[in-house]
Amino acid sequence: MAPPERRYLITFGCPDRTGIVARIASFLADAGGWIVEAAYHTDPDTGWFFTRQEVRADSLPFGVEELRERFTAIAAEFGENTSWRITDTGERRRVVILVSKAAHCLYDLLGRVASGELDVDVSAVIGNHAELGGITRAHGIPFHHVPFPAGDAEGKRAAFARVRELVAAHDPHAVVLARFMQVLPPELCAEWAGRALNIHHSFLPSFVGARPYHQAHRRGVKLVGATCHYVTADLDAGPIIEQDVIRVDHGDSIQDIVRKGGDIEKVVLARGLRWHLEDRVLVHGNRTVVF
Amino acid sequence: MAPPERRYLITFGCPDRTGIVARIASFLADAGGWIVEAAYHTDPDTGWFFTRQEVRADSLPFGVEELRERFTAIAAEFGENTSWRITDTGERRRVVILVSKAAHCLYDLLGRVASGELDVDVSAVIGNHAELGGITRAHGIPFHHVPFPAGDAEGKRAAFARVRELVAAHDPHAVVLARFMQVLPPELCAEWAGRALNIHHSFLPSFVGARPYHQAHRRGVKLVGATCHYVTADLDAGPIIEQDVIRVDHGDSIQDIVRKGGDIEKVVLARGLRWHLEDRVLVHGNRTVVF
Amino acid sequence: MAPPERRYLITFGCPDRTGIVARIASFLADAGGWIVEAAYHTDPDTGWFFTRQEVRADSLPFGVEELRERFTAIAAEFGENTSWRITDTGERRRVVILVSKAAHCLYDLLGRVASGELDVDVSAVIGNHAELGGITRAHGIPFHHVPFPAGDAEGKRAAFARVRELVAAHDPHAVVLARFMQVLPPELCAEWAGRALNIHHSFLPSFVGARPYHQAHRRGVKLVGATCHYVTADLDAGPIIEQDVIRVDHGDSIQDIVRKGGDIEKVVLARGLRWHLEDRVLVHGNRTVVF
Amino acid sequence: MAPPERRYLITFGCPDRTGIVARIASFLADAGGWIVEAAYHTDPDTGWFFTRQEVRADSLPFGVEELRERFTAIAAEFGENTSWRITDTGERRRVVILVSKAAHCLYDLLGRVASGELDVDVSAVIGNHAELGGITRAHGIPFHHVPFPAGDAEGKRAAFARVRELVAAHDPHAVVLARFMQVLPPELCAEWAGRALNIHHSFLPSFVGARPYHQAHRRGVKLVGATCHYVTADLDAGPIIEQDVIRVDHGDSIQDIVRKGGDIEKVVLARGLRWHLEDRVLVHGNRTVVF
Repeated sequence: MAPPERRYLITFGCPDRTGIVARIASFLADAGGWIVEAAYHTDPDTGWFFTRQEVRADSLPFGVEELRERFTAIAAEFGENTSWRITDTGERRRVVILVSKAAHCLYDLLGRVASGELDVDVSAVIGNHAELGGITRAHGIPFHHVPFPAGDAEGKRAAFARVRELVAAHDPHAVVLARFMQVLPPELCAEWAGRALNIHHSFLPSFVGARPYHQAHRRGVKLVGATCHYVTADLDAGPIIEQDVIRVDHGDSIQDIVRKGGDIEKVVLARGLRWHLEDRVLVHGNRTVVF
Repeated sequence: MAPPERRYLITFGCPDRTGIVARIASFLADAGGWIVEAAYHTDPDTGWFFTRQEVRADSLPFGVEELRERFTAIAAEFGENTSWRITDTGERRRVVILVSKAAHCLYDLLGRVASGELDVDVSAVIGNHAELGGITRAHGIPFHHVPFPAGDAEGKRAAFARVRELVAAHDPHAVVLARFMQVLPPELCAEWAGRALNIHHSFLPSFVGARPYHQAHRRGVKLVGATCHYVTADLDAGPIIEQDVIRVDHGDSIQDIVRKGGDIEKVVLARGLRWHLEDRVLVHGNRTVVF
Repeated sequence: MAPPERRYLITFGCPDRTGIVARIASFLADAGGWIVEAAYHTDPDTGWFFTRQEVRADSLPFGVEELRERFTAIAAEFGENTSWRITDTGERRRVVILVSKAAHCLYDLLGRVASGELDVDVSAVIGNHAELGGITRAHGIPFHHVPFPAGDAEGKRAAFARVRELVAAHDPHAVVLARFMQVLPPELCAEWAGRALNIHHSFLPSFVGARPYHQAHRRGVKLVGATCHYVTADLDAGPIIEQDVIRVDHGDSIQDIVRKGGDIEKVVLARGLRWHLEDRVLVHGNRTVVF
Repeated sequence: MAPPERRYLITFGCPDRTGIVARIASFLADAGGWIVEAAYHTDPDTGWFFTRQEVRADSLPFGVEELRERFTAIAAEFGENTSWRITDTGERRRVVILVSKAAHCLYDLLGRVASGELDVDVSAVIGNHAELGGITRAHGIPFHHVPFPAGDAEGKRAAFARVRELVAAHDPHAVVLARFMQVLPPELCAEWAGRALNIHHSFLPSFVGARPYHQAHRRGVKLVGATCHYVTADLDAGPIIEQDVIRVDHGDSIQDIVRKGGDIEKVVLARGLRWHLEDRVLVHGNRTVVF
């Protein structure tokens, strides 16, 4: 497979008004920019306008720094609440993965990376247990075991400080909580805001918190699901990126539900991570636009 | 389409132990009973055994009354907690439908009945608004308008008494709350226990109560759903019969979500009602076995 | 529900090149046009560019005729292969439905229209059998029975001529083959090109032609589906608008498959028809872009 | 997770008649057999009866050999066409996997095995290319590279002979073609009949043969799928075990379709393999019953 051509990804949001599309499109057209993909959305509830554009890097006569500089002037025309970002697909994405003992999401991500389907660098895997060190190292990826002593608040604080340090060393585009079983402290939620993704094994907002499959089994639901969301200080209440479900029935034991749900967790997390890394997810309030 | 052959439907539940299947199967075989469909389940959590059998009526040398009498003796062998029922598909099922203003579930059910897909008698439709009287009568079905005066507790009590009376006159196998917007009082929940089916327009237990699509939109979920459940005194918390979901995205307005969700409500309700009328739904505690 | 605000729908396609979005967006912005929804796509295989824009009618200082006139000049800039259309949602959409004996799709469409979910005029229903006349007339819609004599080629030709005439009298935006069991002659395919929609009861290209559910049952598939497509002279081979599937298993008889599949046919047809009437379906070659 | 308790799996098929369930259930009950799971099906088209029973090994006073011996007498009562099998979950299942270059299905299976979700021995992986040797060996599993010289019929024959020999050495319960790109010769189809499972990357019978995703893209379908089926001498026409689909749209390139479809291939193959190894799949003619 040939490497994908280099692109600049522009995401932009501001209060809606007439002429935004024309302004951005004209700016790009005047510079010779070849738009490969473009999406627009206006939220009628909030009156907020969103767009995402993919431009071929080689169609512009200048580089990403100048593009950002020029775009700063455009963005300023639309008010001080405007939020925008331009990223360069030529810069390789870095990901740090946090795990516990459950293997399925990590295996799945490593498989996608190894086969080239997910074109990122996994900078490190950090586990609060040691079990997943072997497979991580077999993929040539550093594994850090940071134990979280049960019932020891001070020890946990120290462990989180260590995790924070390890993550900071890689400055990743995404911190993936791939069935990491520890609740992040507020200061880490803040530090990783907008780039920490969690996979929760329920169709949120059903079954927040611990052991959602057991909750689902007890309630007798006919579908179980998984939710990929940005981590915020409110447990399992951050902006939802992706969800999916799978059918279960009375014949399914807890173990069956865990297994079936696991298949959904993997794909929901992989989709959410891909979209995040491709700058497809725009957050506004507690909701997402996924282009 | 030829009418389906007449069958006896046997449902049976008791604490699990060795030999139940053999006992029931031998009893039927000894009488020459031709089992057309059979399903078994044991719930490992509760140790409860469930079975449902369809027997060709013409394969037995006696009628349903004698079958029930003989089966009483069998059932007694398995203890006093045994619960069982034998119904005769030769007895036509009767249904009463409760509606408000939303038309889609009623239209869907009437269409299924008119086309012969759902082989039941709709004895009556009762509406707390008059809007759906026209289509009901166009199908040759009696429509009763029972107004529920807003904010008038006494008036509501009287209205429910009237509904109760109307329903009782038909002694239906199912009372279908097809987007009926009134919360049933506990005594009606008790009187209709096990035969009142509600369609709730969310994937329960998410979004209990009023305006679930608005709740879903606000939370930014990526799927909306519907749940068909037995009505109990706990609002939207009865045993779940069937659920399904449909994908929504940031581009969907509340109206879009209502429309998309409506398509799911219709099929979930129709499936749940069919299974209920075919004695496929066995309730144990707050969960269902759907054979 | 308040009536939706009036909008102009612009669909446009031409060979891709730099600056198309800017040109169209600037044209609209210069006229004060408020774009409510916008979608773009470029097909890398054919190099074809597609867009669809919804503009609030009251945001433009001129009417639809002048909009078309002005847009003609814009479109001309992009070459002679450009294809475009501007429609006015203020003009009510007209639909003619062709049926045979199967009732479920017709019931579903009539229910959607009656409840206001599908905001169109059903100008007429034409049946090659008389069975569905009753329900049609109960909705206040004219029903025409045009018998198709089996095995009589001349009689069929005359019947198709009659259908053609009836349809022409209404000049509908869509001719819906809602399980109409007659194969259209090539001249009707040509006359109704781009506005005749069929619902085929299989997941095409599987099971083209007659009795697809029987074919599916014989092959032992684990899902059955339905396909809404534009009618062309090649049987069941026209551009696909929408498809969906539902799970079946070994326990499902042909009758069960017909029933389960029917639920999919209804929603697939309703979605396809809605998208067609909202000018969301752009055809290029034998494929569709659905915005 | 505690190891699952040891069970005997009984699968049985014969022409339907009264009393089969009673005979088998009584036989088991008389021996004290505790039936943990039981399923029955009669195919009305062929008049064939199917059952599968799971019995706790420790509930019987004799071992699997004597169970088979005693059951032989029971089975004989139902005629010479009866087919049955009793397997012991205490005997660990062995699997050989055939691969080419595509990694996703192999990664997925190895991950499931490594995490204990799929409790089998992968005896060997055989590749007609060498690429997947590394990951295989990292899991401690032997990898055999058997090159298939393109356009050299004699060389291919020799390669297949080598594969046959390698497989035979392990006498596996399943030979899994996990995107193996070579068409098996008829004699291998015969030798592996009933235990060679293929994953085909389309919703069969659509898009038989080479490059199904390219075929799907060209046809403009709105869903792509995958099919797990038993391999027979008719290419992609063997009995279907499991299928599933995923939505695609006009924005998806071939690469996107390959990626989305890959997620479906993995789960469909994993489900089919699990069901096969648990003796849940009963083949009759070209169709399967999946209990």
